[in-house]
Formats: sequence, structure tokens, C-alpha cells
Amino acid sequence: MSELEIQVPAMDGGSYKVRIGSGILGSVWGRIEADFGGYGKIVVSDENVVSAGHLAKLLGGREVDSFVISPAGETSKNIDTVTKIIEAMEKACLGRDSVVVGLGGGTVGDIAGFAASIFKRGVSVVHIPTTTVAQADSAVGGKTGVDSTVSKNAYGVFWHPSAVYIDVSTLGTLDERQYRAGLVESVKHALIADSGYFEFIENNIDAILERKLDVLEKMADYNCKIKGSVVEADPNEKNQRRMLNYGHTIGHAVESASGFELLHGEAVSIGIIGAGLIEAKMGLSEPKRSDRVRKIFEKLGVPVTIPSNLDEKKLMELIRHDKKAVNKWPKFVLLEKIGTVHCQEGQWGVDVGRELVEQVLAELR
Amino acid sequence: MSELEIQVPAMDGGSYKVRIGSGILGSVWGRIEADFGGYGKIVVSDENVVSAGHLAKLLGGREVDSFVISPAGETSKNIDTVTKIIEAMEKACLGRDSVVVGLGGGTVGDIAGFAASIFKRGVSVVHIPTTTVAQADSAVGGKTGVDSTVSKNAYGVFWHPSAVYIDVSTLGTLDERQYRAGLVESVKHALIADSGYFEFIENNIDAILERKLDVLEKMADYNCKIKGSVVEADPNEKNQRRMLNYGHTIGHAVESASGFELLHGEAVSIGIIGAGLIEAKMGLSEPKRSDRVRKIFEKLGVPVTIPSNLDEKKLMELIRHDKKAVNKWPKFVLLEKIGTVHCQEGQWGVDVGRELVEQVLAELR
Repeated sequence: MSELEIQVPAMDGGSYKVRIGSGILGSVWGRIEADFGGYGKIVVSDENVVSAGHLAKLLGGREVDSFVISPAGETSKNIDTVTKIIEAMEKACLGRDSVVVGLGGGTVGDIAGFAASIFKRGVSVVHIPTTTVAQADSAVGGKTGVDSTVSKNAYGVFWHPSAVYIDVSTLGTLDERQYRAGLVESVKHALIADSGYFEFIENNIDAILERKLDVLEKMADYNCKIKGSVVEADPNEKNQRRMLNYGHTIGHAVESASGFELLHGEAVSIGIIGAGLIEAKMGLSEPKRSDRVRKIFEKLGVPVTIPSNLDEKKLMELIRHDKKAVNKWPKFVLLEKIGTVHCQEGQWGVDVGRELVEQVLAELR
Repeated sequence: MSELEIQVPAMDGGSYKVRIGSGILGSVWGRIEADFGGYGKIVVSDENVVSAGHLAKLLGGREVDSFVISPAGETSKNIDTVTKIIEAMEKACLGRDSVVVGLGGGTVGDIAGFAASIFKRGVSVVHIPTTTVAQADSAVGGKTGVDSTVSKNAYGVFWHPSAVYIDVSTLGTLDERQYRAGLVESVKHALIADSGYFEFIENNIDAILERKLDVLEKMADYNCKIKGSVVEADPNEKNQRRMLNYGHTIGHAVESASGFELLHGEAVSIGIIGAGLIEAKMGLSEPKRSDRVRKIFEKLGVPVTIPSNLDEKKLMELIRHDKKAVNKWPKFVLLEKIGTVHCQEGQWGVDVGRELVEQVLAELR
């Protein structure tokens, strides 16, 4: 098991540990017990996590209060679910000294983290991510939230975990489409921060698709180091952290326009290809970079073009309403080269004209 | 208008200003406009605030999005009201650059602050308190929250305001019982932190009851300086901040046992008298201290004995369940002398035996 420390103020102090291994899930509860001895505890998971056997493996027969989100997925990511979790916490007589353990994918982590952040003005949360997207991205970074009827993450706070446990062997039960889509965030990390990691992915793409545990452990290590260092520099997304948004401006618009038929990672792969087209038009391209990216995405089987049923006007409208937009137009994160984001006057977001974006959307067909 | 600065990280930086005056409400919106030029804005108030004319005076005919809590008071302090405010914010197209202005008493401030803290991972809040309790206590300090069906402030976060405006002339419309009960928190501030302030209250008690504006301004200044310095030292209530709990351990139990028939301040006055009895039994009393406190409370017309219909067993049970209890028994904040809290080995909470507390509850009849 490897271990890295992320220097971000959590509930209980100025840093937290991310522990990465394969087959470690059965020993995690003992560690949580050691770290949070006198604390009340509740595990938040969902139906998928339970049927995959992860909850049983985590608890190993121990009697622990548990809340299972049902149905699993985005439709349960709302304030009603949070209210039910808070009620369960009160029923379990949890107080200010308590810890919420989120076991599952990104949705479970977002909900569990949000419930922890608002329960009696904040209690600890421990994340145990079980999907490619949660292990690569959402478990580290402290973003929590649930959706309103109008928008995603309308409710939420920044609330950093007290510990993160990543068992890459939990990925073994993930369905193929989810598994592959979640890998796009890993490719994004490599692109924005580490050319060596990008080469690692290129060289090991078959082993990754075969879910070889040693390769997945190495990836988790790369991902958490990259995400962790960006979050350390800018915990509440004032500047540097925006670089994590690479590929997400077009990506979010495509995801939303598809009515969430496309998975997040599938929309981001299209967004990354789009960012590459913008880079080329702005003289930021390197020889072969976009070919190398496309080759990986083709191997992963994630889309690189916008589905033909998505209306271009609607996409432009959604980009205008990007939540990071200022004066109704977002800045774009672009690459200088593989592993390095283009930085303009200390800002990681670049002005890109609307016409250029329209051209790129047309080319993405 | 006087101005003081409180060094606590708010949404937008490392301090915020409290501006105190009388008759300033009509000029506050201009200042908010100056501070939050490009921001979207929404005012949260309640029916009482509207009928007192405060909302109209604040806005001075400007068209501003507004949410009026109805009915006013604790029954609306729940997650449903928060959800409605968030929906109103989305309908008003507010984004991450927005500010919630809470205009009203403690309940309005708690709700408005909580809505701001969880909207899109946190937006700014400006408090304009209009009651004695909110001006003395809740507007400064960053506590936000709403109740569940089980407990008070089950939902909440620490979220410090970006600015506070106190117009003591808004107290002119407050009903007499609310007005007097809210003054108990001012007496508490004097007792825990400033013997000069205590003498000021003694010497000006008639003017205070007549709501003389110059005296109320001076009190607001004392209150915010005391509360501000405690909060600066311990923003998230890890240690020193607990001293603000003086009189609240018995007070909360009495308030809850009365089914909230007693106002918060009325319960705290009983709790402060109770703390004085504990101090006497533990050799911490000064000559005449408790007489001086009683005299003020009698002038204010707030209760100094537990209503006879409240069951002593229930009170002991409620004290055991105090949310600050550790191992089912809370520590008590006690005075060394007027203006100084007794500190035991660096802790502001003192162990007090159950039998002694039972005796004191009996003496409070």
C-alpha cells in the first residue's frame, strides 16, 4: 500500500492521507477505527456498491449504521437524499464527533461529503471511491454537492476529507462503459501536468483495459499526486485549480445537451479533442499531440465527435451559461504542450472568441 | 457611524467590517452596491421585517430580488425554507458571484447565512440584524443553520459574513418582550469579557429600556468587539469560543423543556443565575456579584427562576444530551470574576458534578 499526504485543511487539521492499494478494502475499517476511535460512524453507499459486495467487504460482519442510496446514480443526487441521511445520522445518535464514510462512485462521494459538511456545522468525511472517475478525480479535492431541479451541484460546499482509501481491486466489478469513461479524467491529468504519465498511459493502455492491478495502482498514484498538488495550491478554486477544467467547457455543454445520455468522461473526451482543435487554431499545437490523444481515446472506445442529434445553437447557449463564465463567456483552459497548461499573465484560463468556438463545434461533428 | 474589523476568513478574504450606527439603514444598500458592484443580489427577510418597514427602507424603491420568510420565526427555520431560497436564487439567475443579504433577527440570519454557504459551494452573505439578540450575538460569528424535526441547527456550517451593518434604530419597532430578552446576551458578553461594560449596563439600564439610540450604539460597539475578538481567536469553536456558552448549558435545557415557550434570552437569564449558583458552590463567587446580576435581570423583567411546570428529571436528561457534551455530560463555563471566565488548564469548560447541578436546579425554583 502506498500513501501520500495532501496539505489541505480538513475538518480535523491541516492535511489528510490518501492510501492506495489493491485488495485493501477488508482492512480499511480497522484503520478508520484506529483513526476515529470514539467517533460515531455511518457508511453511505448505494445499491450498486452493495450488490458488488463492497459494503460487506468493508464492514466484515461488523454492525455499523449504514445508509444505502436508492436508486443509485444522479437521480438520487438531490436535497431529499441528504435530508434522509441527516435523519439517519440523528437516529443513530451521531454528534459533532462523528464521521461519514462514503463508499462508492462520484455521486456517493458528493452526497456523503455534502451531508458531512452540513451536519451540525460539519463532521469528518472519509472517502472510499470505487469507480475510475471517483478514484482518479472526485475523491480528492473536497468538492461536494447535490443537484437542484434547475442545475447540477446547485447545493454544495468545499469540504475536504479526513482520509481517502483507494482500493483499485474494487474497479473489477465496474461495468465496461463506466470503467472506460472514467479513465478520461486520468488522461486529462496526464495532459495538464505530467508528460511521463501520458507516456505511461500510452505504453500500458492494453493492461489498463485488462484492469491489471499493478498498473491501476500506479495510475491512482499519479492521479492523486497531480490532483493533490493542484488542490493544495488552490483549495477553493480561485485560480490554479481551474486547470482541472481542461476539456470540461465544451465537455459540460455536450454532457448537458445529451440529457446526460453521455457519461461525464465521454463528454470530456469530446471536450479534450475540442480543446485540441482550439489549441491548433491558436498556434499552441505540438506535432502529433492530437494524434496521440485521439489514439488513446480510440483505444478506450470513448467518443471524439459530438453526436449528430445535438443542436449547435443549444451547445453555444450552454457554453455561455457555463458556471465558471464571467460576463456570459467562459475562459478556456488550453495546453502549451503535453504536461503543461498554457498560462497567460498568471491566469490558467484563456480568452477564446465565440466564432472560433463555433468553428470547432462544427469540426467536432 | 462607527466601524470595526473582524479578522476571520470570510468568503472573499481574511476579514470583514461591522458598521454600527443609528438611522443608517437607508444608506446601507448604496454601500452594498459599492462593495459588490457586479454581483447578483437577493435580500432574505421575513414577514415581521417587512411589516416593520425595514425592507422598504433598505431598498428605497430599488427593484431587487427578495425572499420573505413566512411565517416569521423558528417554525420556518427548516430545510424546506432553504430549498425555496435556493430556488429563488436560481430563478434570479444568481451565480457564484452573488451575495445574500440577510435582513432580520437571528432566525433570518441563520437561514440566509446557511443558504449562502451552500449555494454553488458558497457565496457571500451580508447580515443586517434588526433585533437585540441578532445585533448583540448572532450576526457576528459565522454560525448558520436550520433545524431538523429532531434537533436545532441539525443542518449548518460555519460561514462568516462579508459585512455586517447594525442600525440600532431598527430596534425601535421590536416588541417589548423580544427586546428585553435579547438584551440578556449583552449582559452575558459583559460578564465573560468586560467589567467596564457590565458597569455601563448597570449605569444605563433605564436608558437601555427606553431604547435611547446613543446608548444602544455604544452597546452594539461593546458587543461586537467582545464577540469579534472571541471569534477571531477561535472561528470554528474548538476552545475559547466555548466561553460564549456562559449560562447556556442550563439555559438550553430550560428553553427546550419549555417547548420554546421561553424565548432564548429568557432561558439564558435563568441559566446565568444557575451558573452563579454553581460558582458560589465551587468557591468562585465574588461579593455581591450575583446580586448585581439579579438586579439587572429584574430591571429587564426576564425570569431568574425555572417555571414550576418544568420537570427536573427532564432538565437533567436534556443537560446530558447537550450538543457540546462529551461522554454524556457537558462542561460548564463559569466566571472567575465579572469580566473574566474561569480557565482550568487552558480549558474554558469546567467539570461540575451531577449532584451539584441537581441541587442548583432545585434552588432555581
